[in-house]
Amino acid sequence: MLKFNEEKQVNDIQGALALRPEVEKVIDAVWEKKFDNVFYLGIGGTYASAMQAVTYINGRSDLPVYVQHAAEYYTTGNRRLTKDSLVILSSVTGTTQEVVQAVNEIKKIGSTLLGFVDQEGSALAEACDHVITYPAPGTEQIKFFMAADRLMNKNGDFEDYEEYYAELEQHLAKGLVEAEKKADGFGLAFAEKHRHDAMHYFIGAGNQWGAVYSYAMCYWEEQSWLRSKSIHAAEFLHGTLEIVDETTPVTVFLGEDEQRPLSERVQNLLPRICGNYTFIDTKDYPIAGISEKNRGRVLSHLLMHCVTQRIDAHVEKLNCHPLDIRRYYRQFDY
Amino acid sequence: MLKFNEEKQVNDIQGALALRPEVEKVIDAVWEKKFDNVFYLGIGGTYASAMQAVTYINGRSDLPVYVQHAAEYYTTGNRRLTKDSLVILSSVTGTTQEVVQAVNEIKKIGSTLLGFVDQEGSALAEACDHVITYPAPGTEQIKFFMAADRLMNKNGDFEDYEEYYAELEQHLAKGLVEAEKKADGFGLAFAEKHRHDAMHYFIGAGNQWGAVYSYAMCYWEEQSWLRSKSIHAAEFLHGTLEIVDETTPVTVFLGEDEQRPLSERVQNLLPRICGNYTFIDTKDYPIAGISEKNRGRVLSHLLMHCVTQRIDAHVEKLNCHPLDIRRYYRQFDY
Repeated sequence: MLKFNEEKQVNDIQGALALRPEVEKVIDAVWEKKFDNVFYLGIGGTYASAMQAVTYINGRSDLPVYVQHAAEYYTTGNRRLTKDSLVILSSVTGTTQEVVQAVNEIKKIGSTLLGFVDQEGSALAEACDHVITYPAPGTEQIKFFMAADRLMNKNGDFEDYEEYYAELEQHLAKGLVEAEKKADGFGLAFAEKHRHDAMHYFIGAGNQWGAVYSYAMCYWEEQSWLRSKSIHAAEFLHGTLEIVDETTPVTVFLGEDEQRPLSERVQNLLPRICGNYTFIDTKDYPIAGISEKNRGRVLSHLLMHCVTQRIDAHVEKLNCHPLDIRRYYRQFDY
Repeated sequence: MLKFNEEKQVNDIQGALALRPEVEKVIDAVWEKKFDNVFYLGIGGTYASAMQAVTYINGRSDLPVYVQHAAEYYTTGNRRLTKDSLVILSSVTGTTQEVVQAVNEIKKIGSTLLGFVDQEGSALAEACDHVITYPAPGTEQIKFFMAADRLMNKNGDFEDYEEYYAELEQHLAKGLVEAEKKADGFGLAFAEKHRHDAMHYFIGAGNQWGAVYSYAMCYWEEQSWLRSKSIHAAEFLHGTLEIVDETTPVTVFLGEDEQRPLSERVQNLLPRICGNYTFIDTKDYPIAGISEKNRGRVLSHLLMHCVTQRIDAHVEKLNCHPLDIRRYYRQFDY
């Protein structure tokens, strides 16, 4: 299978889950010390992951947890981000300009910074109070959600926490690679059909909103240089729907959290107004050993990523376009 | 001038500003009673206006004010929206399905609801605790910002409040129609050049983020049936930039608030990678009598609306497409 290293992918997920004691240690210390608010700080792809973590917590807890966009922070500011706040971030390079600039401002305030920073010695690794380094692509969400889960566990919102992670540790890694194998045929067919689309619309809600946001921007636009637009399922029905006709390529990501009904509304509408739609539903990818009640937590966007990863691998080959080259980003100053 | 009724537009703005004693009465009562959080509730265009009001407050106050998406509320919920919260909404029809559903849930919680609802006797007008009815299109943001300004004034964040509104009452309405006249030639040229674009990118930050979000979705997509994508200036640099080439139509809205530098970065980059860009800068539209320090408050997105209104009027005529017809919205159930 193209661009698929089963052993490495299993090890990456297993290793990410094994970070849990480290995450717990940080969260427990912050919990002891008390905090006023929690902010997931991000930009681009990490902003998308932050939205997923915060939407997840909002549905299950009254913890004061917010998304903070890095560039909005150092321009507009946020006076509710204080010395007593916990700020959680993630970075592969540890040098993302806007996040570094935001963190420099946050350090003046004195908030507690937890960074999942993959590059030791980088600016962000140096700046954070607590750094967890585990450079494995595709594990950012697991890290963000582990912090979220521990916070909810401490807050009394997640009784089955240990049982849940026991399930993940036993079954998640294997389940995800099996899902990816299952999705490969679909990924090829989708790539063949859509690899020259002039524009592709991706729709999602709940944890799939962050998924379509980052998929359209960080994968189609940034990596594949294909034009795409993400739109929240609820917002799609308030404007964007009017430009859809028979030939418009539209893909809906259906997950398994509380906002699924918002995407189902779109799923219900599309066949009547469009002849070029695709539904990707994580329910089509059962994972042995993960109980039904736990699927909505972290699983559905990880599963979606397994599916989209298959599309990307085939698009890369068919379009003769290496995903790791950039026209402009980090190529010159602007 | 096409679709331009100077007297009515002046009266609409003047009338909206004259609502201030009503707004103050409600906000002052809520202030007396105390509140925990303030939520601007919206979907589609009102969601965009909510984002503008909240971004505005975040830059100037530590009041706990948040955007709450209506459909996310009745699915995911928000446990920090309590009986002690103030919820502010706006609706032309008073019947927007998702807002009605959210408000029905919020009423069970017992929050205080302030509605700028243009249709008396509608579901939303009936449901809100305080209703202010003033059916004049284009005044939603003024209403939202009046509530914001009074809250900040009570909170000690806006000392020159009276002086500011004295300026607006004397100069805003006339200034906006003059700006619109000035923008008409640009609007026609832009419409002629871009009215058949296969896709148009709109970029903005700060109060212009809500402006591009609603302009792309509620005007180009919904009303003109033209394809467009809005992207926050800071996010544009984290993915979307890679699909820009010589011919890509990109328009940057530049406003005058704290996030202007984020859009200026894009303004600086675009000429090097694109041959089809437009900058619309509210600084090009001075308004006599409004002091420099006050322009960033409400003015820059109202001014931007004056400019885009000229584009829309010409697109409507040139494209032979009445802006008030809808293919799908409210045409059948879904």
